[in-house]
Amino acid sequence: MNIYQKVKSKKPLVYSITNYVTVNDVANAILSVGAAPLMADDEEEVAQIASFSSSLVINIGTLNKRVIKSSIIAGKQANEVNIPVVLDPVGVGASSLRNEAVKKLLKKVKFTVIKGNITEIKALYLQKQTTSGVDVSSDDKLTTDNLEDTISLLKKISIELDTIIAATGEIDIITDGVKTNLCYNGNEKMSLITGTGCMSAGIIASFCSVDKNYLDATTKAISLMGQAGDIALEKYRGLGSFRVDIIDALSNITDEEIKDNANIKTL
Amino acid sequence: MNIYQKVKSKKPLVYSITNYVTVNDVANAILSVGAAPLMADDEEEVAQIASFSSSLVINIGTLNKRVIKSSIIAGKQANEVNIPVVLDPVGVGASSLRNEAVKKLLKKVKFTVIKGNITEIKALYLQKQTTSGVDVSSDDKLTTDNLEDTISLLKKISIELDTIIAATGEIDIITDGVKTNLCYNGNEKMSLITGTGCMSAGIIASFCSVDKNYLDATTKAISLMGQAGDIALEKYRGLGSFRVDIIDALSNITDEEIKDNANIKTL
Amino acid sequence: MNIYQKVKSKKPLVYSITNYVTVNDVANAILSVGAAPLMADDEEEVAQIASFSSSLVINIGTLNKRVIKSSIIAGKQANEVNIPVVLDPVGVGASSLRNEAVKKLLKKVKFTVIKGNITEIKALYLQKQTTSGVDVSSDDKLTTDNLEDTISLLKKISIELDTIIAATGEIDIITDGVKTNLCYNGNEKMSLITGTGCMSAGIIASFCSVDKNYLDATTKAISLMGQAGDIALEKYRGLGSFRVDIIDALSNITDEEIKDNANIKTL
Repeated sequence: MNIYQKVKSKKPLVYSITNYVTVNDVANAILSVGAAPLMADDEEEVAQIASFSSSLVINIGTLNKRVIKSSIIAGKQANEVNIPVVLDPVGVGASSLRNEAVKKLLKKVKFTVIKGNITEIKALYLQKQTTSGVDVSSDDKLTTDNLEDTISLLKKISIELDTIIAATGEIDIITDGVKTNLCYNGNEKMSLITGTGCMSAGIIASFCSVDKNYLDATTKAISLMGQAGDIALEKYRGLGSFRVDIIDALSNITDEEIKDNANIKTL
Repeated sequence: MNIYQKVKSKKPLVYSITNYVTVNDVANAILSVGAAPLMADDEEEVAQIASFSSSLVINIGTLNKRVIKSSIIAGKQANEVNIPVVLDPVGVGASSLRNEAVKKLLKKVKFTVIKGNITEIKALYLQKQTTSGVDVSSDDKLTTDNLEDTISLLKKISIELDTIIAATGEIDIITDGVKTNLCYNGNEKMSLITGTGCMSAGIIASFCSVDKNYLDATTKAISLMGQAGDIALEKYRGLGSFRVDIIDALSNITDEEIKDNANIKTL
Repeated sequence: MNIYQKVKSKKPLVYSITNYVTVNDVANAILSVGAAPLMADDEEEVAQIASFSSSLVINIGTLNKRVIKSSIIAGKQANEVNIPVVLDPVGVGASSLRNEAVKKLLKKVKFTVIKGNITEIKALYLQKQTTSGVDVSSDDKLTTDNLEDTISLLKKISIELDTIIAATGEIDIITDGVKTNLCYNGNEKMSLITGTGCMSAGIIASFCSVDKNYLDATTKAISLMGQAGDIALEKYRGLGSFRVDIIDALSNITDEEIKDNANIKTL
């Protein structure tokens, strides 16, 4: 069984503590690949729920002090029961609260994967202030000139934080510090609807639930999300239907199509 | 005037305290059948809002201690002003917090209808721990073998809790302890998008707002949701458009179609 | 460059503190016109985020005491850094909490624009209790008979509160107390999906971010939202796809179409 079949067959319970902007899209994305979503954020229940879940996503998109606390409890419990934990540090760098929250999370929770755009990954590592909100800062745009340096930096971050780093952008870079995968699927229109990044994190957690080769699982999840965006782009009619078409594509895509369309390069 | 026409004509105000995952779908479902949705959860305003509402839904999908408190206040006030109250005990059994919250709600609030999947209804009654998240546990799947026993159990629960029990699944079972309706509308794809259950609860509240035959109103609401799912399934193109098509179907369905498609059996 | 091009070119960061019912639609509407949405509500980060944003929306749709506090802090900071602030007083009049929150907001924050339906604008000004939830009360329906009086009242409110008042309805009335614009775009179906009002507020903020003629920017934003609704209505297939089609229309509409379709009358 390949990873896509494994998710559909095992239907892992993917527990997300996530923002209220895109939470519905995240739940539907997780369902679309065959996993089962669960959302809960009260500190009194998060450990109990993490205990029987197959993986955990912590997404700080609309964090508040109550939920930061819950996230740490859930993350620690997830570590305890040895399930993969994915961090999506949405908008880190936008405020001291986010920087401090991420610092605390990194200290208390062992993350399997940290997925963010390149600006978020840098901000998380450098604990610096950014002003581009939840988007990539123009300074951070990937070019053929800076690709190599960016990869080196991400490898360094991966080793130092002892986690897989998945930096999404024009080219998605996924690294465990040693091996690095580049993914070329996806398109710019995906950044014009809210939630594609958050959905990716949900799919990464779904895949890591059923395959312990986390680098491979993460890469395939990100590639799949990009492929869904590319399929949706073919019949593009506007940003509203584009979002709907991405979920359609996620739920319809066949193993054969994935094999044909995956555009991954291993360094 | 039949119940569908009554909702459209009276446009009852359906007040929901509900989870942030599917709240948008719930609001749009309520609007689609002709009622008016209102969401609010601060303890200082919930009683005031319940006072002029036509019905109340309490959905614990993403409960927290603050909102549990608000739900109890709103529920008590709804009882005070004698409007129907629907409980959707999402994920009860998944945590002690949920079990305790539901216990408290059942003690302090008189519910007109409790709607959940069969696992939730059992967990609510037995106050037990489950590990299937918000989905039906595989042990609880309805079969021709266990249908009769399940109905007996639900009737018992209905009598003991003095409320209509609506257990959704392959066959939806709606009972007031004496009379039982089985509804065969709906399809399995509906469990592959988030929110269909929550939308049902919103439609039940909409219908109970305008018809005091609550068993009948609840059954028709659940059947309508199932019919919308079946209409959407006919042109199925993927899980994203399926969700959109369900709302389309809810808003477009005619009395004539409902009469033809309703698949309800009264025991 | 006209205002539509300016938004697309500058991609202003539009910061919203908004309700969890329609927040996803608001984010996608802001993206659809070319701006960048950001949502955050913890009191510890709201000032910092307001500092580098291009505009702020405060929408009280699902307010709670924690977020009221955050909204005031964010609003004051937005005033400090001199960015436009839009108030969407959703459901004001439905509870004392909402009335008090709005009173406090009006006292502490200078709003550039207050946008609401006519019932909300009246309730906000008169601090009175209403029972129509988030919808227009039947007493407040615009007619040819009461149009002139309504305009006079709105001008008075505008002058007294020293802000642009945008009252949406069958005819949208936008006034700075001296000059008044009437907008005839839009249709009744738009009130049958949740979020069109909240989306308008997001687009108003997007436009006010790039043009200091706030009366004009607000009018064009409201007209654009109405035009998108009218384009979507042409291919109406149900309330689910109608919502999707509105976002499609917002993202596809051309300057040429806007010029042809804008239906604005200046008094």
